[in-house]
Amino acid sequence: MNTETAKARIRKLRNLMRKNEIDALLVTHPQNVTYLTGFLGEDSWLLVGRQVCLVTDSRYTEQARGECVGCKIIERIDPLAQTVRQVLDKWKHRKTNTMGIESSCTFQTHKIIRKALKSKLLIVDNMVESLRQTKDDTETRILQKAARTAWRALAHTTAHILPGITESELTGVLEYQMRRLGMSPGFPTIICFGPNGSRNHHQPGSRKLRKKDTILIDFGVRYQGYISDTTRSFSYGKPSKEYEKAYYAVLKAQHAAIAEIRHGVELKQIDAVARETIATEGFEPYGHGTGHGLGLQVHEDPYLAKKAKGKLQAGQVVTVEPGIYIPGKFGIRIEDDVLVTKTGCKVLSEDKEFGFSRKTLPVLG
Amino acid sequence: MNTETAKARIRKLRNLMRKNEIDALLVTHPQNVTYLTGFLGEDSWLLVGRQVCLVTDSRYTEQARGECVGCKIIERIDPLAQTVRQVLDKWKHRKTNTMGIESSCTFQTHKIIRKALKSKLLIVDNMVESLRQTKDDTETRILQKAARTAWRALAHTTAHILPGITESELTGVLEYQMRRLGMSPGFPTIICFGPNGSRNHHQPGSRKLRKKDTILIDFGVRYQGYISDTTRSFSYGKPSKEYEKAYYAVLKAQHAAIAEIRHGVELKQIDAVARETIATEGFEPYGHGTGHGLGLQVHEDPYLAKKAKGKLQAGQVVTVEPGIYIPGKFGIRIEDDVLVTKTGCKVLSEDKEFGFSRKTLPVLG
Repeated sequence: MNTETAKARIRKLRNLMRKNEIDALLVTHPQNVTYLTGFLGEDSWLLVGRQVCLVTDSRYTEQARGECVGCKIIERIDPLAQTVRQVLDKWKHRKTNTMGIESSCTFQTHKIIRKALKSKLLIVDNMVESLRQTKDDTETRILQKAARTAWRALAHTTAHILPGITESELTGVLEYQMRRLGMSPGFPTIICFGPNGSRNHHQPGSRKLRKKDTILIDFGVRYQGYISDTTRSFSYGKPSKEYEKAYYAVLKAQHAAIAEIRHGVELKQIDAVARETIATEGFEPYGHGTGHGLGLQVHEDPYLAKKAKGKLQAGQVVTVEPGIYIPGKFGIRIEDDVLVTKTGCKVLSEDKEFGFSRKTLPVLG
Repeated sequence: MNTETAKARIRKLRNLMRKNEIDALLVTHPQNVTYLTGFLGEDSWLLVGRQVCLVTDSRYTEQARGECVGCKIIERIDPLAQTVRQVLDKWKHRKTNTMGIESSCTFQTHKIIRKALKSKLLIVDNMVESLRQTKDDTETRILQKAARTAWRALAHTTAHILPGITESELTGVLEYQMRRLGMSPGFPTIICFGPNGSRNHHQPGSRKLRKKDTILIDFGVRYQGYISDTTRSFSYGKPSKEYEKAYYAVLKAQHAAIAEIRHGVELKQIDAVARETIATEGFEPYGHGTGHGLGLQVHEDPYLAKKAKGKLQAGQVVTVEPGIYIPGKFGIRIEDDVLVTKTGCKVLSEDKEFGFSRKTLPVLG
């Protein structure tokens, strides 16, 4: 992150703080800390007040010095809460001003901080998160590069998709390819063979690939803190009629939903369009939502779901991932990452190079 | 997990609940849910009251049916808090009884639950966690198997440790080996070459291995939810005098600390022994603690640290991991997993097979 970006983000945050009459905000959520400083470590809090201070410990001091932009780094020896109080004391903020703390912190942390400060503490909901929803050009470029690298890694993996390989080993191959390309897995990779595909968050196990199996791969790549999230479904050998029909129903639903995406459209409408397509094609609706925001976290606001409130905003990046799951048989999900624009959208995970574009059913073997 | 174990754990929890006058406890911490049910998924809560109910969603229902022992599975459609209220309503618990919630939940969750229940909510600190500290034979066997598999994976990785390989790619090789052996990385693997070793939580990057580099590998394997955590430090080619001296200082500190471990010894004493050895050998003390509890989480109580209160208990499993870090030069850490017994301890990560035992400085290349 460059200094300009860091300054702009802190400035926007200070505006929100002023509106909410908060003089100092304790940012405890790791991805919020990353967003404001560029720091990619853990167990560190950011105190935004008279100064901007990253409170970390010796495990991260060197890393913070290398990564942080525009903030003071404090290496704590005492517990976090105590260090925060020491900083506030220095600022002479303690008695006179209002302190905010994020509602995503644990109840325990809130209690400790409240006790340490002996003053009123304002609970802040969704403040930094609201800034994070709108991605700038740098962020969308990073997300795009992550998605492209994901396809590249998958392309190097397909040669290993052979009868006898386990879900677990294939996961290892795919994640190795991410690492070889200098990135890392963004979340636990999901690889399911055959009936395991109907378990939406299946953990890759000892199931071996057989001829005529179906394959579902849901995976992401982390790059500079940002995470891609894409899914492809394959058939190994000639697909069954039922699988083929379901595959094209999911593909149709995904295309229909993406076609609806543009600034100002209701979140729940995108969900409805995908769901109705699946139903019209004669399949059961899927249990999960149609998509979610994407960025420093793999799941963040906004959510494309039945009961979602609000509208799409230009600059948001969302996944679109309808599916069909037939317990005992197979699961199909097709997922891409989409940038919302004023006039429509751009599929950031569009693949023009590796053969994973959203067209025909990919048959392996 | 077998039914007996699940029943015994719930029984112990109910005893604690009775002592604290809690009729129903909402378990929100993922690893606490795993401990009580065997369920390895996420985003699911356990309600322990008249019945034991896992509240999950459609993504995890199939998985929960396969993994859960001795509890009812409720697939929610409504938000979690609402579903919890519905269950309590069925039990007619809502108006008359005391409900507990874990202090590790977010402030937000606490607020939502409190609102949904319209009744007093007791904050529960460390209740399931206190049960988790004492490992039974099955748990220590799992941890031992995880650590052995970690060494096996590392043994298959050493052939790839050659000049030119990046930290990131080597991480990919090691994690692939874990997957090939049917397990998975327990936490983000740390591999550092040369001066990167002094950054305690370095993320493997594009640094390439050079001749006469030093190597630090801190890694864990997850098996049945449990995580091993071990570190080894290597020299690639002939080590420098300084590195060699530091290596043996760390080794001496680790042996001295492990020799002290037995039921009833003060936690801070283990830390002091390791730290004093490092100082006596003429090196700066390390900034992190000497060790931490290990189990379903990679860091859990008890902590072996300067200001730690309490004593070691038989059945606890802790890491012992002193280190020496010289910024700009290298980092050394040697870490093993140790079971506390009544009369002493047992090193669960003892390696008799792969050549990673804690004796001489391992030289590669």
